[in-house]
Amino acid sequence: MTIDKNIGKKIYKLAQEIFPITRSITGDGVRKTLQIFKEICLMINIKEVPTGTKVFDWEIPKEWNIKEAYIEDEDGNRIIDFKENNLHVMGYSTSVDRYVDKEELLKYVYVEESMPDAVPYVTSYYKERYGFCMSKNMRDSLKDGRYHMYIDSTLKDGYLTYGEAIVKGKTDKEVFISTYICHPSLANDNCSGPALTLFLLKYVMNMTDRKYTYRFVFIPETIGSITYLSKNYKYLKENVIAGFNLTCVGDDRTYSFVETRYANTFTDRVLKNVLGYHYPNYKRYSYLQRGSDERQYCLDGIDIPICSVCRSKFGEYPEYHTSLDNMELVSEEGFAGSYELMIKCIITIEKNESYKMNCLCEPQLGKRGLYPTVSKKGQYDDVYKLTNIIAYADGSNDLIDISEIIGVPVWEMIENVEKLVESGLVKICGGNLIKM
Amino acid sequence: MTIDKNIGKKIYKLAQEIFPITRSITGDGVRKTLQIFKEICLMINIKEVPTGTKVFDWEIPKEWNIKEAYIEDEDGNRIIDFKENNLHVMGYSTSVDRYVDKEELLKYVYVEESMPDAVPYVTSYYKERYGFCMSKNMRDSLKDGRYHMYIDSTLKDGYLTYGEAIVKGKTDKEVFISTYICHPSLANDNCSGPALTLFLLKYVMNMTDRKYTYRFVFIPETIGSITYLSKNYKYLKENVIAGFNLTCVGDDRTYSFVETRYANTFTDRVLKNVLGYHYPNYKRYSYLQRGSDERQYCLDGIDIPICSVCRSKFGEYPEYHTSLDNMELVSEEGFAGSYELMIKCIITIEKNESYKMNCLCEPQLGKRGLYPTVSKKGQYDDVYKLTNIIAYADGSNDLIDISEIIGVPVWEMIENVEKLVESGLVKICGGNLIKM
Amino acid sequence: MTIDKNIGKKIYKLAQEIFPITRSITGDGVRKTLQIFKEICLMINIKEVPTGTKVFDWEIPKEWNIKEAYIEDEDGNRIIDFKENNLHVMGYSTSVDRYVDKEELLKYVYVEESMPDAVPYVTSYYKERYGFCMSKNMRDSLKDGRYHMYIDSTLKDGYLTYGEAIVKGKTDKEVFISTYICHPSLANDNCSGPALTLFLLKYVMNMTDRKYTYRFVFIPETIGSITYLSKNYKYLKENVIAGFNLTCVGDDRTYSFVETRYANTFTDRVLKNVLGYHYPNYKRYSYLQRGSDERQYCLDGIDIPICSVCRSKFGEYPEYHTSLDNMELVSEEGFAGSYELMIKCIITIEKNESYKMNCLCEPQLGKRGLYPTVSKKGQYDDVYKLTNIIAYADGSNDLIDISEIIGVPVWEMIENVEKLVESGLVKICGGNLIKM
Repeated sequence: MTIDKNIGKKIYKLAQEIFPITRSITGDGVRKTLQIFKEICLMINIKEVPTGTKVFDWEIPKEWNIKEAYIEDEDGNRIIDFKENNLHVMGYSTSVDRYVDKEELLKYVYVEESMPDAVPYVTSYYKERYGFCMSKNMRDSLKDGRYHMYIDSTLKDGYLTYGEAIVKGKTDKEVFISTYICHPSLANDNCSGPALTLFLLKYVMNMTDRKYTYRFVFIPETIGSITYLSKNYKYLKENVIAGFNLTCVGDDRTYSFVETRYANTFTDRVLKNVLGYHYPNYKRYSYLQRGSDERQYCLDGIDIPICSVCRSKFGEYPEYHTSLDNMELVSEEGFAGSYELMIKCIITIEKNESYKMNCLCEPQLGKRGLYPTVSKKGQYDDVYKLTNIIAYADGSNDLIDISEIIGVPVWEMIENVEKLVESGLVKICGGNLIKM
Repeated sequence: MTIDKNIGKKIYKLAQEIFPITRSITGDGVRKTLQIFKEICLMINIKEVPTGTKVFDWEIPKEWNIKEAYIEDEDGNRIIDFKENNLHVMGYSTSVDRYVDKEELLKYVYVEESMPDAVPYVTSYYKERYGFCMSKNMRDSLKDGRYHMYIDSTLKDGYLTYGEAIVKGKTDKEVFISTYICHPSLANDNCSGPALTLFLLKYVMNMTDRKYTYRFVFIPETIGSITYLSKNYKYLKENVIAGFNLTCVGDDRTYSFVETRYANTFTDRVLKNVLGYHYPNYKRYSYLQRGSDERQYCLDGIDIPICSVCRSKFGEYPEYHTSLDNMELVSEEGFAGSYELMIKCIITIEKNESYKMNCLCEPQLGKRGLYPTVSKKGQYDDVYKLTNIIAYADGSNDLIDISEIIGVPVWEMIENVEKLVESGLVKICGGNLIKM
Repeated sequence: MTIDKNIGKKIYKLAQEIFPITRSITGDGVRKTLQIFKEICLMINIKEVPTGTKVFDWEIPKEWNIKEAYIEDEDGNRIIDFKENNLHVMGYSTSVDRYVDKEELLKYVYVEESMPDAVPYVTSYYKERYGFCMSKNMRDSLKDGRYHMYIDSTLKDGYLTYGEAIVKGKTDKEVFISTYICHPSLANDNCSGPALTLFLLKYVMNMTDRKYTYRFVFIPETIGSITYLSKNYKYLKENVIAGFNLTCVGDDRTYSFVETRYANTFTDRVLKNVLGYHYPNYKRYSYLQRGSDERQYCLDGIDIPICSVCRSKFGEYPEYHTSLDNMELVSEEGFAGSYELMIKCIITIEKNESYKMNCLCEPQLGKRGLYPTVSKKGQYDDVYKLTNIIAYADGSNDLIDISEIIGVPVWEMIENVEKLVESGLVKICGGNLIKM
């Protein structure tokens, strides 16, 4: 397993590039972000679904775009300006151009009381209203007087925009990687997800011996996954063997994942196994702690085996959904760790097979140079890594099972497995074994 | 869930009324107790089975009645008198009228060495003998001299008496509540059980929308349940979905229940679920700690899913089977808690259904007024109580399963479930789901 | 269960007798050891398999015998002499007669660096070489000068020798006890195993009412079990219900066993049950900690349910495979404990049946003298030992299951079970129940 040493820096740089863009669930910010991605990787197809399209119980909303927004005091000072931080406007705010007194102004102001310096991230996608967000400290310092609330935005029929890239493998069975691109200037949640996903897409394109097909989608959260599923769920249900929703993957505090609804899919197995070796103190959240697109993917009738993978999980770190979730919260090391984790997952998925021994009793490894010819006390650690594979290669276990039993990660077993295959002692048994 | 605020007082008062009566496994004490109950609730049928009737491996014993019993010293002082406390006579004592010295007297005296002030409760149902019970302190203070042992009792062919009330529901499937009425002046074990049971019977009669049939029996312990089963076990086996043996339900120290033989019945599920919310520190006893009529109900070939439900379990509290198990040991609060627990069990049983979502992906709750239209950090607790039901309403879980998964008791889920049913988002799936 | 009080002494004495013999995986040492055993027990058949015979992936090696071996310094002092301790020669050393300087000598000298006083046990079965073993302290004290390395051994076509005894029971189903006889002067590993096994063979021969057939084999480790299996595995696979590999059974530090590959055989059940009562602090090792002939017996395709049973497990005690594993490490008490454990296992296996009650509800034990006629507080411990058997004798449990449920070892349940059978209350159900 060789990992590009500069990968953390590269992912960070891309996240940094898309950080300032004003994204929402629709609009030009999403288009611009996807365009940057497409320039790096031509495989990404950008697709649009018109306003009003029915998607299951939902409907594609109007497209939202915004040019300008500010609050000015009576002296013409801009108290807040959308250009400085796009969090200052509630997402999906309609236009306004009103002069109001302080009391009236405060009806349209959102703060996060528990974090006095932070500007909160607030949206109102499905009910038309307008609003401004500022820090608690700023709001508390507002003087009496007249204020000018100004928003120049449009909310009209348009499109929901998303990106998709499908990299074919030897089989149609798929690994599905989903990430969302609907948050404005928030770094961990969620510039980090799309940036990492893009580099995984590039990794997958470079894999020489790709067993599975890989599908990557860059969609707005909730309405995007519902839209995507409404078009594709039957195919995905049949073909996706494992999947990941990537979000909050740029900080370096911990690792975590959200289990599927019953924690019983192949994806759960892979993550439990891989994270158990990669970062034994990782946090596992049940589906009750869900909150991103795994909410849709895992529901009854959809049942696509997708876990959300995070460093610090959304909702669990203090800077979440505030202006403090900025490029200082994420790091090159944080990104590099997430990338390595995902590569380990991909290798584990790709290499996972079931093997069966060809001979009865232990084979004589000595004559094959795989066992020491002098037998003395305490020299068997390496030998046992090999003989333990032999012991459990009985056709009923795949490599993940064996990894769990013998305490060795799949990526460290591959060399030994290949030796056994070459020597003719084991053979692949029963095709690709994907245990759910 | 509305509970009568005076229920504890009412149950206490009834227990107090029946406390002084000299009950045993047969005889007029049982008849008198049942008569009091019938006056409160006419639905109770009083039935009698004659001495000598074969019931499985047993036979109904002779009927025992007692008029008078005492020990007098040579000065004519009554050392003990049955009229003061009916525990002073061993249950089923034959008559005696003998003058004896102290040494001979002591052959017929039972004490509880470990509790010097308490008069123990002792019986000899199946071997004819006589005996007296007193405190250790009294026995130790007896002087040498002549004593007069006097018991005027009858032991002759008669009947075993029990009460039964069946309240019909929409189906023949039954909830079975059993309690015993064979102990004399002992409050927790067991005046408390019949008194609580009577008020549950009244509650059930007042239920407007009763799904299940409810059967209540007031029987002598062991021989009574064996007798009742010998007549009814085939029907009960087929129709009882859950059942409770109520005893020691009047103190307020803890809550507990005795699991069925393999702890795998619907009753076990209900109690684990309900007690887990009602009183998380409750004690669960395995069938190895059994001792009341669950001994009979749960045996192989009978297999009626009955758990004994107690506050402090029989045999586990120090006053058990002594004169200290009196009306001071039980309390209005103790009774009220037991009543509330049983109502919660009944509601959980009645409301337990399996539901299935009608739409793919999450429904848009916002347009139905079930979801906030402004999305900001940390406001989702109530929403999750609803969406978690949606997530697991996939037809494979009944409400008890969902309650276990999402950590909300069934009685707190009902309102949300009804909203979902009304909105057409979920429907009942597969009839009444009673998982054993 | 009556155990010969002198059994520890007897086993110790036999282990002591065979301790000095130079055994290896082939050769006269094995023959001599088996001859001693055959003199004690004529049932043992000694069998030989010629060099070159193919056994699965292996081949019977040349037979090794040795007459003399030493290292002399230039003054003719014997630094080490095989006659003093046969560990001084690497097992399977070829002949040598060379004068060398110290530097050259050290290429052929093996020590155990971590134990300065101990001579290690080293072998080279499958590659021809020669070598000497000595303590680290001796090696470090060697002076410069000329040394004479002398080994007079033969390595030529011959036989692999083993012993086998089959004691017929009422059925062909077998209990299989395997032990190895290939180590030279090492007491716990492994003079202890064959010595104990011989006395178990004698015990089994004296059993009056033997349900199962018992097979005992005394074989060289690894190549011996592979050889034995290559001839017998199909029969064994079909007929062995439980089996034990006995080794390191002479010390008195702890008890332990090595589980089968999936810890799910009848043998695992028996050992978990019996050791749980015999020595609750015993150590259970997974198959990952294997190392003796369970390596072969338990592999896929062989799948004979054999656990290695030890006091301190091979590889886990410091003296293992050194000259400190001598007759002082083992004790009469150590042997007696192992013997008692194995007898308990045999009784548990022999007596394990499934029973079913003949009557509904509890039987009236009082009329059969099995229940007290006076009922008072706290007198039921013995009664519950009986009624708990009744409660779980429902045809679905064998006695080991019941033992686990009620917390009483099988050998303490037998008397009660016999009472119940005699009274006609229970009957054996479904023949011999061997749950795997």
